[in-house]
Amino acid sequence: MISLTPHHDGSALYVTGGGTLGERCTLRLRVPQSWGKAERIWVRSVQDAEPRYDEATVIGEGDGWVWWEASMLHVNLVALYRFVIQVAGNEVGNSEQDGPSYWHLNNAGLHNRDTSDYNDFRVTTAKAAPAWSHDAVMYQVFPDRFARSSKADARPTPDWAVACDWDTPVQGSGPDVGRQFYGGDLDGVTGKLDELEALGVDIVYLTPFFPGRSNHRYDASTFHAVDPLLGGDQALINLVEAAHARGMKVMGDLTSNHTGDAHEWFKRAQADPSSVEAGYYYFNEDHTAYESWWGVQSLPKLNWGSEALREAFVTGEDSVVAHWLKPPFNLDGWRIDVGNMTGRLGAVNINKEVAALIQDRILGINPDALLLGEETSDAGAGVDGFGWQGAMTYSNFTRPIWQWLGNPSARVDFFGTPLPGPPKVSADVVLATHKDLSSAFSWTVRKATMNALNTHDTARAASVMIAGGPLVAATLSMLLPGIAVVFAGDEYGLEGWNGEDSRTPIPWDEPARVVTDLRSAYAALAAVRHSSAAVADGGMRWLMADGDVLAFVRESPTESLLVVAVRAAAEVPVADLGLSSEDVQALQGPPVIRTGEVAATEQRLHLAGPGAYVWRLSGVTVPAV
Amino acid sequence: MISLTPHHDGSALYVTGGGTLGERCTLRLRVPQSWGKAERIWVRSVQDAEPRYDEATVIGEGDGWVWWEASMLHVNLVALYRFVIQVAGNEVGNSEQDGPSYWHLNNAGLHNRDTSDYNDFRVTTAKAAPAWSHDAVMYQVFPDRFARSSKADARPTPDWAVACDWDTPVQGSGPDVGRQFYGGDLDGVTGKLDELEALGVDIVYLTPFFPGRSNHRYDASTFHAVDPLLGGDQALINLVEAAHARGMKVMGDLTSNHTGDAHEWFKRAQADPSSVEAGYYYFNEDHTAYESWWGVQSLPKLNWGSEALREAFVTGEDSVVAHWLKPPFNLDGWRIDVGNMTGRLGAVNINKEVAALIQDRILGINPDALLLGEETSDAGAGVDGFGWQGAMTYSNFTRPIWQWLGNPSARVDFFGTPLPGPPKVSADVVLATHKDLSSAFSWTVRKATMNALNTHDTARAASVMIAGGPLVAATLSMLLPGIAVVFAGDEYGLEGWNGEDSRTPIPWDEPARVVTDLRSAYAALAAVRHSSAAVADGGMRWLMADGDVLAFVRESPTESLLVVAVRAAAEVPVADLGLSSEDVQALQGPPVIRTGEVAATEQRLHLAGPGAYVWRLSGVTVPAV
Repeated sequence: MISLTPHHDGSALYVTGGGTLGERCTLRLRVPQSWGKAERIWVRSVQDAEPRYDEATVIGEGDGWVWWEASMLHVNLVALYRFVIQVAGNEVGNSEQDGPSYWHLNNAGLHNRDTSDYNDFRVTTAKAAPAWSHDAVMYQVFPDRFARSSKADARPTPDWAVACDWDTPVQGSGPDVGRQFYGGDLDGVTGKLDELEALGVDIVYLTPFFPGRSNHRYDASTFHAVDPLLGGDQALINLVEAAHARGMKVMGDLTSNHTGDAHEWFKRAQADPSSVEAGYYYFNEDHTAYESWWGVQSLPKLNWGSEALREAFVTGEDSVVAHWLKPPFNLDGWRIDVGNMTGRLGAVNINKEVAALIQDRILGINPDALLLGEETSDAGAGVDGFGWQGAMTYSNFTRPIWQWLGNPSARVDFFGTPLPGPPKVSADVVLATHKDLSSAFSWTVRKATMNALNTHDTARAASVMIAGGPLVAATLSMLLPGIAVVFAGDEYGLEGWNGEDSRTPIPWDEPARVVTDLRSAYAALAAVRHSSAAVADGGMRWLMADGDVLAFVRESPTESLLVVAVRAAAEVPVADLGLSSEDVQALQGPPVIRTGEVAATEQRLHLAGPGAYVWRLSGVTVPAV
Repeated sequence: MISLTPHHDGSALYVTGGGTLGERCTLRLRVPQSWGKAERIWVRSVQDAEPRYDEATVIGEGDGWVWWEASMLHVNLVALYRFVIQVAGNEVGNSEQDGPSYWHLNNAGLHNRDTSDYNDFRVTTAKAAPAWSHDAVMYQVFPDRFARSSKADARPTPDWAVACDWDTPVQGSGPDVGRQFYGGDLDGVTGKLDELEALGVDIVYLTPFFPGRSNHRYDASTFHAVDPLLGGDQALINLVEAAHARGMKVMGDLTSNHTGDAHEWFKRAQADPSSVEAGYYYFNEDHTAYESWWGVQSLPKLNWGSEALREAFVTGEDSVVAHWLKPPFNLDGWRIDVGNMTGRLGAVNINKEVAALIQDRILGINPDALLLGEETSDAGAGVDGFGWQGAMTYSNFTRPIWQWLGNPSARVDFFGTPLPGPPKVSADVVLATHKDLSSAFSWTVRKATMNALNTHDTARAASVMIAGGPLVAATLSMLLPGIAVVFAGDEYGLEGWNGEDSRTPIPWDEPARVVTDLRSAYAALAAVRHSSAAVADGGMRWLMADGDVLAFVRESPTESLLVVAVRAAAEVPVADLGLSSEDVQALQGPPVIRTGEVAATEQRLHLAGPGAYVWRLSGVTVPAV
């Protein structure tokens, strides 16, 4: 349960300036009059590891809120700050009778005590992800399973593969998992851009397109060619050109932690201990053994201590990272596979150095490119925006949402944990988890972090969740801060009990394989996402987290979006949402999104569940000083 | 309020092995039968940034507890881990009806949800602080104010000073704060070693002994001489020899963040832009301005990018760090002033590199030396044991204890915050703060971190706290994990509203200036500290944190210590402490420490307050596998 409490986030409603060392930024805080009167407020910032205090002053009131503002000097690359709020003795929360009480407001919430710096708000000098990502809908394509072009039929089945028809059931385990070959190709993707555009897709994210000896192609034999089975280099050039013509972006997928043992680098390295490439890896002294990902010998680990590797992979004129961002390919960015383990091995940890090197190179070629890093678990400490600009993580969105909307009888892979499936939890636990695993992100990193319901590495939401759950989750993915993600096939309600099982060929012309047609629902969500300044650049304020109900509001100067998600039928007391009387009136009108029946009075929202309901409300005005 | 919950800490009861990369360590967990039945338990560790799970097995039961054990590979310098505990559906804490529940136990406690890695338990490869620090009582001496030897009278008052008689009131503010000169000297300290030994002191920690132009001597003109006003080098040699003869250690105080502007380095640097020393500081291009501590021009900041500075300060044969640890001085370690800001300036952050360099040098000279760093606020992220082995911080002990025992009408400096004094909070808030600000410490760092009631930089506990509060706080300082600290004069109940005001000359022969004679109480606490394996190397388990009551138990195989601290008269239900029946019987006997009246029945402890009460209980046996 949330009641109205003081609020700050990293959006423009609350932060002006910042991001430049030696300059001041202006920080604003709203205090609800219903919460109590703040007597004094300070910004506590950490400067060269020492706390400083800047007092805030009231700049105005309105709609039941008092607005405060303070100025903070931005001293370090990552500037930590929180608010310290003084209230009269035991007015709120403090059971003590004597003296004033102090609240600390940080990125994890409001605390009646001193807090560690870890959850402080952050502004940084890191370059934010490009503007095109702010309201983007990312669509993840697993090339072998997305669409076959007419050229695919002419290609012979490779020797490692088990040829499959498009409707052959996908195997989630067993010896053929990596060998089932459906023959999707990049021309196939190009041929479906109409469909993606109709869905509201802005970014096509392709899992690897390099040649390999598996259907997933994470075992690339080279980083300098597109797999001929996908149509070769020209097919990628065509896809990117066609996407760009529609205003879409295309991102690739690159593993910086390891290569496959069939990679040309590794073959030279293994054959010749004196080769340059031998230094790319961690061989033992007599060159008989090497480090690998999780001990899997087919995935030898890259040694980022090697200057030659850095040049080949990142800094060189035609490095892997650079090659595909430059003409004629013009990729718009990279998703880095196993970003968390990159540059980490035992006593060695140069992860952030490598990530920053890659960012520097990418933005040097195209300042408008996007760099995302896979950090599947807690990404808070690892992703500060100086390397990966955002995270592909399951920790702060996917996992808690699965637990809230999960079907308790689902037996699916739960992110590699030993648990039999997602343990069911209530909304307050979801929110606590979400906050804990998000609070170390700067606002810009949070906005560039992927809110995925599922990916090619996980079970499908449709197999995890109660009926109707995936669309509730999709609404949250579309409207929470972060990059909305659709894994190809989500729009057809496809199922899968683990990542491999989820790589289902898209049922383009097979109505019988469509589980639930969510295309129009996705398109409607994407349209709201694209049309709302509150989503692209607005603030984020939680209103309710209680059992079956999660509610929040995205806020901008021009409009706000109220989002109420329920996993079961619910009656929500309108007063608990703390809206202005104008907004309470607006609730009587039709929602812009509703996945079920809704009836609104001034007292209560009657909501069918599971369901998601979105209303446009008035914007938020920062009082003039 | 704490009820009996699953427990783990870094002590030998729960951790065997660890600290060596590539080797496994054994981790144990106790689950109270009264809490519920754990169905399965895993250790979740983070290895090269990726989670791994090792399942635990039951190794035995006893005294109402079930013991579990798992094995974890120690992969990284800092190994993070937590326990994941599966219980039957909604048996404990989970309001959901379906499926099992999972608890995460980390260094901040038990959570009904997934948690960020920040609060995970940690084992590290860092060298732990020396064994002599484990049960040590540190006594902090501010040399000008501690004791005058007979030689002091013969010394002329320096030109910068205002000569004071030993009973002249100390000024806490105004122009003479740094100039009041009382003439205490090192022979004075040597002459009082009997008194310190009687008090139970193990470590004499001297604030700076270098020559300066202030009574605090943090503005050293050289790091290579003991101030003649303190008796010069020979006086230090004599003091250390005398202390060592009694088995006591002596630590010095060194500022690595800045020097004074009267320092010989800075004078040469300022006079000659081409001097080696000019590179020790941050001068602007035309050599007219330089960086300094908080903009205070008399304290120019050191530039640790300078290799020459590193040699002069750390790595050189007769470097500052080395000079005093070698014969004939044989200091036992350093407390590093402003350790947190050292090597940090804007975009530059080489703090940990510098700290590690200093540790490496110190332990190279004397593997049994101790290195502590001042990090006054949150020290969790900054102190990982590879640089400072422990922290001098106020964040996890001093501040919350002040808030619990504070006199609400006290108007004292509250650690540089803008607050008028410590806001009063209840015991549960104290414990939450203590845990939050301690949980990022490894066990070895926590044990080497100073639990100070007050220091030369803070108000005195006697001025902050309610009557009787300081002795309660002293008991906590002596018996919680960490180094117990006595600031000279605490044993006489001396007062002070800020750090400067607290630097009162010790009333050796002036009974009228003794506020409260706590010497025998301190001696008794020190005796318990020194005689208990549970304090030196035992575990730490909280039993109660409720309003006026804080209770915990330190546990070792041979004995345990139960500590109950109350800030007002209290009746504590014995059942709430969760003790074995044998230990409940032991409570009927006399406490080994009691600062007030106590009456115990098998149902209740009736405790006068404020007060602290300590009982010896039976040891804890790890069941044999």
